[in-house]
Amino acid sequence: MEITVMSNILEKNEEIAAELNARFSKRGIFVVNLLGSPGCGKTSLVEQTVRLLNNDFSLAIIEGDLYTSKDADRIAACGAPVVQINTHGGCHLDAAMVKAAISQLDLEQIDILIVENVGNLVCPAEFAVGEHAKVVILSVTEGEDKPLKYPAVFQQSAAVLINKVDLLPYTDFAIDAAIGDIRGLNPNANLFNVSCKTASSLAGWLEWLKKQVIMLRKQKSD
Amino acid sequence: MEITVMSNILEKNEEIAAELNARFSKRGIFVVNLLGSPGCGKTSLVEQTVRLLNNDFSLAIIEGDLYTSKDADRIAACGAPVVQINTHGGCHLDAAMVKAAISQLDLEQIDILIVENVGNLVCPAEFAVGEHAKVVILSVTEGEDKPLKYPAVFQQSAAVLINKVDLLPYTDFAIDAAIGDIRGLNPNANLFNVSCKTASSLAGWLEWLKKQVIMLRKQKSD
Repeated sequence: MEITVMSNILEKNEEIAAELNARFSKRGIFVVNLLGSPGCGKTSLVEQTVRLLNNDFSLAIIEGDLYTSKDADRIAACGAPVVQINTHGGCHLDAAMVKAAISQLDLEQIDILIVENVGNLVCPAEFAVGEHAKVVILSVTEGEDKPLKYPAVFQQSAAVLINKVDLLPYTDFAIDAAIGDIRGLNPNANLFNVSCKTASSLAGWLEWLKKQVIMLRKQKSD
Repeated sequence: MEITVMSNILEKNEEIAAELNARFSKRGIFVVNLLGSPGCGKTSLVEQTVRLLNNDFSLAIIEGDLYTSKDADRIAACGAPVVQINTHGGCHLDAAMVKAAISQLDLEQIDILIVENVGNLVCPAEFAVGEHAKVVILSVTEGEDKPLKYPAVFQQSAAVLINKVDLLPYTDFAIDAAIGDIRGLNPNANLFNVSCKTASSLAGWLEWLKKQVIMLRKQKSD
């Protein structure tokens, strides 16, 4: 019985996510579902991405947290439209939450929508929110064993960012082992080593993101 | 309907957890449910605790992970009996899993049982596993905003360890703000600043843990 109920929840979520995805594609809005542990650097990446891309593309952000509007406050300070979802204890966002949140955004004005999910390497992987791509961040301070211990999120992500590489000298993170494990789980993942403290390290990530918007618009016009 | 099912699952779990807790108390085994984000340092803390306490107290460890026996392998190398639970994607341990796992341990020989939960700041807080105390680790690389964003686990924990303080000089973690927020959520929490790389920094934590065993035994004999 538990399994039936769970399967119904997931099916219903897939339905709303597919409907959202079609709406976003039709408007040429590229949507990222941004995943990672608490403190891996999701909000820092969003801040930098808004700052560095906002001249060329219009970004909007949906922030998912159990409580507080701390992350939305940080994004608003960067000048992007942002909606904070509070799950009140819930461990992941779902498509219905995102559907409700976008009613507060002017979709006409958006090129890229980043949905920053709840900090959690497990549950958010099961619930699509209408995205074109999942992106996961692993920070070097978490240890290189995490991809094999939390494989689903790495298998499903189109891009994997290894963050906080500025801290590599102070940790025993074996970056080659981490990259090998990620490639083993997901040979097609786009892999970027970044530090959100250094804009230049984000060039590869920003290029990838821009390319996705352009490809989406091209598909739309074909 | 979803809520009813969830409530049944939680009730059933509470029942098994209470039964386990009574069994552990009767034998004078102090049980810790160790919580924290992926990579916050749970396994490192367990390794050091086994190494530093094993002359005076017999420890046994239950390791919870979605996949792999990486953590159990690390603990076995420290010489403590260990059982690995793989949840196969599940986001938390529950009391039934721990009940099954202890059948592989000789309870006669154990003073302290540490149950290292799945790396997740959200879901494990809802499921007791028979513990006498929840203990949560927050690492400084995660950022000082985490207690207010994930309050339940900090409110429920008897002890809070702020870990990786050796990395403080390389981060912008505001430790006083973090401590203030934790005290606000949980004025009775025992708070320890630690680095699992430095045995001496663990003295307060080890003293607290020893005291809990002694208090449990005293209650038992009263």
